[in-house]
Amino acid sequence: MRDFSQDHLWLSINTATVRKQRGVEQPLPAIIEACAKRGIRAISPWRDQVAAAGLGRVSSLVKTHGIALSGYCRGGMFPAADAAGIKAAHEDNRRAVDEACELNAACLVLVVGGLPGALAGKATHKDIALSRSQVRDGIADLLDYARQNKMPLAIEPLHPMYAADRACINTMEQALDVCDALDPSRTRALGVAVDVYHVWWDPKLEAQIKRAGKERLLAFHVCDWLTPTTDLLNDRGMMGDGVIDIPKIRGWVEAAGFAGYSEVEIFSSVNWWQRDCAEVLDTCIARHKSVV
Amino acid sequence: MRDFSQDHLWLSINTATVRKQRGVEQPLPAIIEACAKRGIRAISPWRDQVAAAGLGRVSSLVKTHGIALSGYCRGGMFPAADAAGIKAAHEDNRRAVDEACELNAACLVLVVGGLPGALAGKATHKDIALSRSQVRDGIADLLDYARQNKMPLAIEPLHPMYAADRACINTMEQALDVCDALDPSRTRALGVAVDVYHVWWDPKLEAQIKRAGKERLLAFHVCDWLTPTTDLLNDRGMMGDGVIDIPKIRGWVEAAGFAGYSEVEIFSSVNWWQRDCAEVLDTCIARHKSVV
Repeated sequence: MRDFSQDHLWLSINTATVRKQRGVEQPLPAIIEACAKRGIRAISPWRDQVAAAGLGRVSSLVKTHGIALSGYCRGGMFPAADAAGIKAAHEDNRRAVDEACELNAACLVLVVGGLPGALAGKATHKDIALSRSQVRDGIADLLDYARQNKMPLAIEPLHPMYAADRACINTMEQALDVCDALDPSRTRALGVAVDVYHVWWDPKLEAQIKRAGKERLLAFHVCDWLTPTTDLLNDRGMMGDGVIDIPKIRGWVEAAGFAGYSEVEIFSSVNWWQRDCAEVLDTCIARHKSVV
Repeated sequence: MRDFSQDHLWLSINTATVRKQRGVEQPLPAIIEACAKRGIRAISPWRDQVAAAGLGRVSSLVKTHGIALSGYCRGGMFPAADAAGIKAAHEDNRRAVDEACELNAACLVLVVGGLPGALAGKATHKDIALSRSQVRDGIADLLDYARQNKMPLAIEPLHPMYAADRACINTMEQALDVCDALDPSRTRALGVAVDVYHVWWDPKLEAQIKRAGKERLLAFHVCDWLTPTTDLLNDRGMMGDGVIDIPKIRGWVEAAGFAGYSEVEIFSSVNWWQRDCAEVLDTCIARHKSVV
C-alpha cells in the first residue's frame, strides 16, 4: 500500500467539494488555480462547471498547470419514460465522452440513473428491473462510442439510498456483472468507480474489489459517512470525521492493482460548503496524509 | 398470491406507526383498542410501549381481543465496546424472548446493531467486520435460549444507510448466510423479517426470497420509499405514496411460501405521526386493500 503520509502526489479533488462556498458558485478556473497553487496534481470536474467556464478554457487551463483529470463527472442517467428521453440521454452521453476526451480525463464516471422522473419526485413507474435493463442497454450503446474514442467508462455503484432517483446500480457486484457482460475480455474500456461512501457498508466489498482487479478499478473516491447523517445527499463527511475505515478499503483496491488518485468528493451543505475554498483544500491535503 | 382487496384479514399494524401522534405518546392499550375496533387482527408492538403499559396488561388485552402478534420489536443490538456491554445485550435479549413468549408473538424481530456507540454519534471503532462477527456470536448464543422457549428469531436486514448505527446486516443474502450457518437444518427457529423499505432496491431480492423459502420467511413488513426522502429514519411513506412495487415483492414472498400478515411499519415524523390515530389506521386498511 502506498505511503500517503509524506506528500499529496496522489490526491485529486472532485470539484463539487468546493463548488458553492457559502451559497456562491465557485468558478472552475478559480478552483483549478487554487489546486495548482497547492501542488494538487489532479481534479475531477463536473460538466456544468466546465460548461460555465467554457470547455476550451478549462482544457487549456489544466494543460497549462499540468493538472490531470482523475475522472470526469458525469455521464449516465440512461433510463427514461419514452424513446425521446432515451435518445436524449444517448446524445448527451456522447457529448460527455467528447468533453472527457478533450480534457484528457482518465475516465468518464457514470451515474446510471434510476426510475424516470423520481429525481423530480414524480417517478413514471416502479419497475426498477426495467430501469436496470435500460441502464445496461445504454451502457452497451455508449461503450461502442467510448471505445472508438478511447475513453474508459467507470460505472459508479451508488449507495442503495439513491436507487430510486440517481442510480439503480447499487453494489460493486451488480456493477461488475454489467462489466463482465459487456466487456468480457476485460479490456479496461469499462470498469467501476469505487466511492467509499457508497460501498463501505457492503459485506461483499473486499471480495468484489478483488474480483474487479486492476482492469476494472478505474477510480477511487473518498469522503466519510457521518453519524448521524442529516441529509441523504449533502451531508458527507471529511475523511476522518466519520465511521469508514478508509485505509482498509484503499488497501484492498491497491492490493487489487489500483495505483491511481484518491479523489476527494464531499457534498456538504451544512459544513464544508460553508467554509473558504482554501480551508477546505488545505484540510483535504492534511486528511489525505493522515487518514486516507 | 392472496387477494387482499376485499378485506384486511392479513393486515398487521406495527404499533410504531401510531406511536406518537402530534408529539404525544399514544398508550399501547388505546392503540390495541383502536385496532380491535377496526377488525385488525394483528399488531407488532415495541418493547418500550409494552413496558409502559405493563406486560401483564398488554398480554391480557391482546388475549381479550383475540389479537395476534405478527412479531415483537425488538431484540438485537449485539455489538458492544466491551465484555460488559456484550453481557448486558445478552441478558436484555433473553428478556425480550421471555416477553415475546408471554405475548405469544410469531417471532422476535432482531435489529442486530452496528458499530458500538454510533447511534449516539460516537462510534468506538470502525471495524464493521468485528461488529458482524459479534452479531453472529450474539445470535448464536440467543438462538439456544430462543429454541428452548420455542420463540423464532427473525433477523431484519436493515437498509445499508443504517449499517453504522442500527444494523450491520444489510441484505437478505447476508442475513440468510447467517441463518444457514446457525440453523443449517432450516428448523424455522431462525429466519428473516423482510421489510420492503430495507430491501426493495436489492437486485438480488427475488433470488434471495426464493432462497429463504417458507422456513426462513418469518415476517413481511410494508411501507413505502418516498422521493425525496427528507430524513434517514423518520420519513417513511404510506404504501402507495412511494416508488416500491409492493405487490411484486409480496408476490415473491408468497410464491416462496409465506402466508402470514402484512405488517405496516411507518415512521413518519412529518406526516403520519401528525395525524389522528384513527385516520392513520383507516388509511392503512384502505391501502392494504388497494396497493399491497
